[in-house]
Amino acid sequence: MAISARTAEEVWRIVESKARKAKSVAPIVATLSTDTKNRALHQMADALWERRYEIMQANGQDVEDGKAAGLSSALIDRLILNEKRIQAMVDSLKEVAALPDPVGEIIEGWKRPNGLVLQKVRVPFGVVGVIYESRPNVTVDSAALCLKSGNCAVLRGGKEALHSNIALWTVIVDAVSEAGVPRDAIQLVDIPDREGARAMMRMNEFLDLLIPRGGAQLIKYVVENATVPVIETGAGNCHVYVDRSADLEMAVRIVVNAKTQRPSVCNAAETLLVDEAIAPQFLPRVAEALLAKGVELRGCEMTRQILPNVKPASHEDWYTEYLDLILAIKVVKGVDEAVEHINHYGTHHSEAIVATDLRTARKFCDLVDSAAVYVNASTRWTDGYEYGLGAEIGISTQKAHARGPMGLRELTTYKWIVWGDGQVRE
Amino acid sequence: MAISARTAEEVWRIVESKARKAKSVAPIVATLSTDTKNRALHQMADALWERRYEIMQANGQDVEDGKAAGLSSALIDRLILNEKRIQAMVDSLKEVAALPDPVGEIIEGWKRPNGLVLQKVRVPFGVVGVIYESRPNVTVDSAALCLKSGNCAVLRGGKEALHSNIALWTVIVDAVSEAGVPRDAIQLVDIPDREGARAMMRMNEFLDLLIPRGGAQLIKYVVENATVPVIETGAGNCHVYVDRSADLEMAVRIVVNAKTQRPSVCNAAETLLVDEAIAPQFLPRVAEALLAKGVELRGCEMTRQILPNVKPASHEDWYTEYLDLILAIKVVKGVDEAVEHINHYGTHHSEAIVATDLRTARKFCDLVDSAAVYVNASTRWTDGYEYGLGAEIGISTQKAHARGPMGLRELTTYKWIVWGDGQVRE
Repeated sequence: MAISARTAEEVWRIVESKARKAKSVAPIVATLSTDTKNRALHQMADALWERRYEIMQANGQDVEDGKAAGLSSALIDRLILNEKRIQAMVDSLKEVAALPDPVGEIIEGWKRPNGLVLQKVRVPFGVVGVIYESRPNVTVDSAALCLKSGNCAVLRGGKEALHSNIALWTVIVDAVSEAGVPRDAIQLVDIPDREGARAMMRMNEFLDLLIPRGGAQLIKYVVENATVPVIETGAGNCHVYVDRSADLEMAVRIVVNAKTQRPSVCNAAETLLVDEAIAPQFLPRVAEALLAKGVELRGCEMTRQILPNVKPASHEDWYTEYLDLILAIKVVKGVDEAVEHINHYGTHHSEAIVATDLRTARKFCDLVDSAAVYVNASTRWTDGYEYGLGAEIGISTQKAHARGPMGLRELTTYKWIVWGDGQVRE
Repeated sequence: MAISARTAEEVWRIVESKARKAKSVAPIVATLSTDTKNRALHQMADALWERRYEIMQANGQDVEDGKAAGLSSALIDRLILNEKRIQAMVDSLKEVAALPDPVGEIIEGWKRPNGLVLQKVRVPFGVVGVIYESRPNVTVDSAALCLKSGNCAVLRGGKEALHSNIALWTVIVDAVSEAGVPRDAIQLVDIPDREGARAMMRMNEFLDLLIPRGGAQLIKYVVENATVPVIETGAGNCHVYVDRSADLEMAVRIVVNAKTQRPSVCNAAETLLVDEAIAPQFLPRVAEALLAKGVELRGCEMTRQILPNVKPASHEDWYTEYLDLILAIKVVKGVDEAVEHINHYGTHHSEAIVATDLRTARKFCDLVDSAAVYVNASTRWTDGYEYGLGAEIGISTQKAHARGPMGLRELTTYKWIVWGDGQVRE
């Protein structure tokens, strides 16, 4: 499909029509039985595999266009769909089908003195908008998580993946409709420029929630422009603080893991904070292990007195999510300065303390204002699967609604159902 | 304090400085003991009573200014602080002190196969902004609920109540600081024009949550302009649907209560939907009872065939929150049309069905997309106190974070605290 220049009003009308269709079937989707939803997910899995050549052909055009447009090889790699990657989508659909259905849980309830029986019942949001970038698997993943949690989905992927997304979406809606789920439950906004996203951001009448999945710039843009409630799945400027009471061998292991096991992800560590009391012993040990893994170190003045070959860290470094084999290091006076540094420069994602002193560990947990706080473990654990949530639609760095890894439950809200026998208020 | 013309930058700087001060003490306030917080609330109560003349004097100036500015007598009434109203604030502070502290609850937790122990712990948001209108008691109420839930508060009231709010705030911060709570925990933005509110709405660095408390216009303005996460405490275009299976005597009682017991509040009913199968019997009965209470009726065509003296309802009526003794009436084909009408025209606040047929009642509960759904009870019950939450900071009509009446717990978020003994990810 060629992207032609459309006016903002045309784009608004197109997106509105899709969102309105989703909203109109939302009560049906919200009350689908678990069996129907699981059948639809399996149908999606089967259809993706059966129609994989159709999908790969569409994907081939995106890859070709991307190369012609001079996309970096990293971006091209994200875009590619081969049999292995389609198999991964198939597997992931089956995993979502196997998860417990969050809808209908009675979260709590009680009887009031006047006889009213209150039930706080878990229900879907209704229509969830997802705005994402170049990876086409997000189309399938978002559709599956929304459907399993009883939500309709309005999906807007990146322009690089437009043909792939249209092919995937076609396969998905054909499959779900065979299982008795309305086709309109899953909408693809095939307007991958900013106007398409902008329309979704102000579509309060038909969208109940908006989740941006992608880089820091995309998320910032959505947070700043959306009137629809947003879950900010944010950047991770994560810290490891090594206290004077730490087991130094464990500390080396945790720092190396948090920095190097997968440096490109949001829960990787970006700054190491070291208690001045153990800095002279610890810094040479950890530096040796990090340098062996190819990590570039940038240190504060005190760090550089102990490790003279380390580059100086600038003020900007404390704010930076490198997503790369670079680590900033700062020597601090103790846990209080560590907490202060983290709360000031961090992004409220994941932080770890390595310590054996319980009071220090508890202080760190109490005072650090982040979604996940670790005692003697790597920040890399912040993940829906690793937490046992069974799925992950993102890691929230905001505080409203959901914080940290978001699974199916975080795609739901609740309503109060109140049973009476004529009670009126006097 | 005279309100002089300030530039947007000046206002931003002033508000930022207050929000920054609140943020800087937020970790202290978040970890205050329940005893300290309760002592501070009692200290506030005592001080309000001891310094009531100082407060009433400041209030007198607001009332005088308001009269000179030609405020309506209803607005002047909202503004007035007398001994009785100050006593009501004192009582409400003591009630908040008596409520359980939501902070520190371990909401859930488990041990993972790798030995990591996860705890999902209830914690305060940090700094909560409250933007409200002319009632000065909201200053005290918001400060108390924020403090009890471990939050700092940045309060911005209406310009009509500026002197009253400054006096109340002075008394409050003096009192809490005597109890060991930092003065900076409660900030008053004494810039009651739009610029003050606007600055708060974009203060993401220092504000974690924003709650507008007031009329529909204020809330709309905040929702449309805020980048800080907002809890929409919205308008209530509430419905009562009387099904063919209803106990008609109960239905009359519920409709009359929902419309007339307190017509000016958000949980009062605005539209009555009547099943066509019982409309000929029911409408004359309910109309008689409503007219006896002085309610103006506006009906659809079918209603007017049965009740010829009733005014016609326009399309606009179905959207209208009258907040007055006016009721729109529509005859519908049954529960399906009732649900469709409610979901299309309503504000997702509170709706009731009167019915004896269980399947119909369950269908209504399942499909109506509102915060509170009642079977055989009045919509007027939607209230934090009546639900047994002990307090109410507002009634959320959005779905993210909180829905329906919000008590202390809804002023909190959670963090994940994870205890390990050296776990790293491979």
